[in-house]
Parts: sequence; C-alpha cells; structure tokens
Amino acid sequence: MQTVSLNRSYGGTQGVYKHASRETGTEMAFSVYVPPHPDGAKLPVVWYLSGLTCTHANVTEKGEFRSACAELGLIFVAPDTSPRGEGVPGDPANAYDFGLGAGFYVDATQAPFDRHYRMWSYVTAELPELVAAQFPVDPKRQSILGHSMGGHGALTAALRHPDRYRAASAFAPIVAPSRVPWGIKALGGYLGDDKQAWRRHDAVALIEDGARFRDLLVDYGDADPFLTEQLRPELLQAACDKAGLPLTLRRQAGYDHSYYFISTFMGDHLRWHATRLKA
Amino acid sequence: MQTVSLNRSYGGTQGVYKHASRETGTEMAFSVYVPPHPDGAKLPVVWYLSGLTCTHANVTEKGEFRSACAELGLIFVAPDTSPRGEGVPGDPANAYDFGLGAGFYVDATQAPFDRHYRMWSYVTAELPELVAAQFPVDPKRQSILGHSMGGHGALTAALRHPDRYRAASAFAPIVAPSRVPWGIKALGGYLGDDKQAWRRHDAVALIEDGARFRDLLVDYGDADPFLTEQLRPELLQAACDKAGLPLTLRRQAGYDHSYYFISTFMGDHLRWHATRLKA
Repeated sequence: MQTVSLNRSYGGTQGVYKHASRETGTEMAFSVYVPPHPDGAKLPVVWYLSGLTCTHANVTEKGEFRSACAELGLIFVAPDTSPRGEGVPGDPANAYDFGLGAGFYVDATQAPFDRHYRMWSYVTAELPELVAAQFPVDPKRQSILGHSMGGHGALTAALRHPDRYRAASAFAPIVAPSRVPWGIKALGGYLGDDKQAWRRHDAVALIEDGARFRDLLVDYGDADPFLTEQLRPELLQAACDKAGLPLTLRRQAGYDHSYYFISTFMGDHLRWHATRLKA
Repeated sequence: MQTVSLNRSYGGTQGVYKHASRETGTEMAFSVYVPPHPDGAKLPVVWYLSGLTCTHANVTEKGEFRSACAELGLIFVAPDTSPRGEGVPGDPANAYDFGLGAGFYVDATQAPFDRHYRMWSYVTAELPELVAAQFPVDPKRQSILGHSMGGHGALTAALRHPDRYRAASAFAPIVAPSRVPWGIKALGGYLGDDKQAWRRHDAVALIEDGARFRDLLVDYGDADPFLTEQLRPELLQAACDKAGLPLTLRRQAGYDHSYYFISTFMGDHLRWHATRLKA
C-alpha cells in the first residue's frame, strides 16, 4: 500500500492510498479518514460506495462526512467504482453507465470484463482485509452506505452479509437493477443472461428471495431526475413491507441526485450508523 | 444575471450565476448560498474571497459552509478570483500566481492588465450591488473572510471599509504582500512601482498607516508549506499588537494550506461572523 496524500482534517487524518489489487489485477486507489482517537483504540469502520462516474475523490472532497466521523469516532473508507488503467476494457460506446466508473459492485463473468471487473470481491473481501491490516479498525464493527449505484452496492452487500455489517443505508439507491435501464445494461454486460445471478445483485430480489437485514435507512430527493426510471424506491418499500423488514424511507423535498443532497443528510446517516455500531 | 445551476442543500439553495461585469468587462461567475428563511426576511451576507488558482467552485464544493450558514441564517457569496475569457491577458509565463486565477483583489493600473483586472471594485462595489438587488440580503449586515490571497483580500477590504463589514476573518492569509514573493510579483505587475499604492493593498501596511477594525480572527496551519515565506502571520500579530487592534491568531497543529484545513474551521469562522452580524 502506497500513501498518495495525507491531510489533517477535523483533528484526524484524511488519507488517499494506492495498492495493487489481486482481484482486479490493477492498481486501485481509495481514501480513508481516521478520526482523532486514543492511542491503541480500535474504531468502527463505515464503508461508502460511490455512484456512476465517481472515484474515491468525489465523496472525499464533497461528502462532508469528516465532521460527523470526528464527532462519532468513525473511520470512513471510500473505494473506487471500477478497475482502471491500461488493458481495462470500458463501454464499447464510451457511455458513462458501464465499464470505467461503473463497476456496479459485481464480479463479472462475461469476457472481456471478467478479468478485471471484480468489484464485489474487491469491496467485500480484499479491501476490508487490507484496511483491517493497515488502519486501527475493529473488524467486528463495520457498516456500509452508498449513493445511487453505490447505494445498490451497499444494500446488496448488507443483505448478503447481515452478520458482518451492523448498519446499512443509502442515498438515492438503485434498488432493483434487474428492472431498470442502468441495471439491465450493467448486469447483462457483466453477468450475461443468468437471471439467477442478477437476483443476487438486486436488493429487491434478494429480499424477495429471503435475505434480511435488521433495518435500513434510505433517503431520496423528489427532484432527482433519475427517480422514476432508475431508482424506484417504491419497489424497495413494497419488498420490505412484504418481508417485514424495517425500512426508514425518506422523501426529501426539492433535493436532486448531487452531492449537495448527499452532504445535507450525511450527518444523519452517520449518526444512524454510529448508534448501531456502538450498540 | 443568468442562473447556471440551483441545488437544494441543507434546506436552502446553492446557486451559481453569471453576469456581464462592467468593472472587468468580462462575464463573471459567482456562487450564492441562501439558507432556509422566512418569506420576506432580509439576511446577513458573508463574502468569501478565494485563493490562488481558485474559482467560485472550490469553496462551493469543498468549503463545508452550508451546514453552519443554514443553522445561523447567513447568505454566503463566493466570487471568482480574476477576470477570465478571450482577450484577458494572463501571466506571460503561464505561472499560477499572477493573472488568471490570481487577481489579488486590486484594480490594476498597469497595461495590459488595467483593462480587465479590476477585482477590488468588483468585489467591494459592483458585486455587492448586484447581490443586494437579486437576493434577500440586508446590506447593513455584511462580513468578509477569505483564504490565502483571498485572506489578503478580506483583510484589506475590512480595514478600508470598517463601517461596511461587521466582521472579518481569514484562513492562512497573505498579510503583508509588499514583503513576500507572491505579493511583490502581483502588486508590481498590477500596480507598478507606486509603493504607496501597494500599501493600500497590504493589511500590515494599512494597520501601520492607521487603518483599524473592531477585531480579527485568523487561523493558519503549522504544516502550511507557504507559512514562513508567503504568509508570515507574525507580521500581522506585531502590527495589531502595536496598533491595539484585537487579533485572535490561532496556530492549528498539523494543518496545511488545503480545503481540508479550511473546512475544519469554517464553522468556527461563521459563528464568529454571526455573533457580530447579529449584535
């Protein structure tokens, strides 16, 4: 692991790091904020998965999470959203919603993407091991949140690993990728026609198939241009209602899909996580 | 005035706007955050002047000011740092510290800069008039802060207009541009050899020449790479001590010159401003 930058912030340290990933076969960058803490302490860790087109840098610069993390004593980790670099194939038409910046948190099975696009294993296994080895984290106290495509990643990770993550939440998540254009393109491209494989990367389908989580917090803005076609929070509401899974789903008036929305509610989400991480 | 973007944030509205400036003879962009407020209310306005290389966008995206502005009921305005566009001359060697992104908040007297580089009149006269006409501001309650070159701008504006600004503060300001490389280059380039003109754009010289302000807050980081050569806060301390001007000068351990530093202490500064704006 190589340190790219370190900056003091809110009494802690915002770092950016690079490492050679065995899963993606590429160099991967990520950011970690470590809040002020007593020597020797092991802290809870919050994973943040970003949306389409983002790298670790978007939330690191615009997410406004450090104030709450410093106050609550949370480590905050932001991975990249796809492999990158020479030899990594992207979208054939250079679209923003597939390939680079759009890994969708799956392990691709379809050539030519299967070699590098292993973001599921990267964010749920490889990077947690690295972070646990390099930072003062308590691996028994992890939680996960994300935005849009990263909200999809956070919800599916939580539903498939309910014992590992003590809390999960999302900003404007894609809740049913099997049924919306962004998701159909991505799951088809990375996983092919195997619809059972799609269901394991679809929060609503996972809940329909029996996956459960203690409770979920989801915020979305009613001025989000992707709301009705791509996000469809009502599908998550219906699945949770049917399954008896406690969902706090909040419609935020006037908010869009941007970091102006995310940063506004970041503190709320981190307090939700902290309550469960420290319970 | 043309609206470039509007985003709901912390219950208020973050806007970006453009207008044709009579002072600079160019199109100028700026951002304004309007916090949630009762209909018909007139709010205090805080001016933020940015540092070298910045536009309005840096603080708008990374400054983390909206949370405190929403809580305190403050409008926050961020102008650009120079004229830009076709026909605007820059640094002959394309350096970052003169010309584009480096207007130094003066009205240039030297050709070819005198035609467009009129940032002093722009930020202290033209833009305040426009903002007062277009936004729900109370022009009797204004304050000013800034970073680095913008800290220089904020301190000189406050010292020359102590009745207009009710509060002033700075992050890592250039306090004595007449005596440091960045300032000598900029003041020489824009104002020529007239050292009396330089003194009117030098906070320490203004205080030596009798300018006063009710009190000042200045933060700097002791890991700031520009501290000893360009910023020299000790010169401001000495001038304020001699003049009996109350200065709260805080050395922040481990902090550098970045927005990670600025955002950490932004809330403190805005609370300092709010106390004085509402007194």
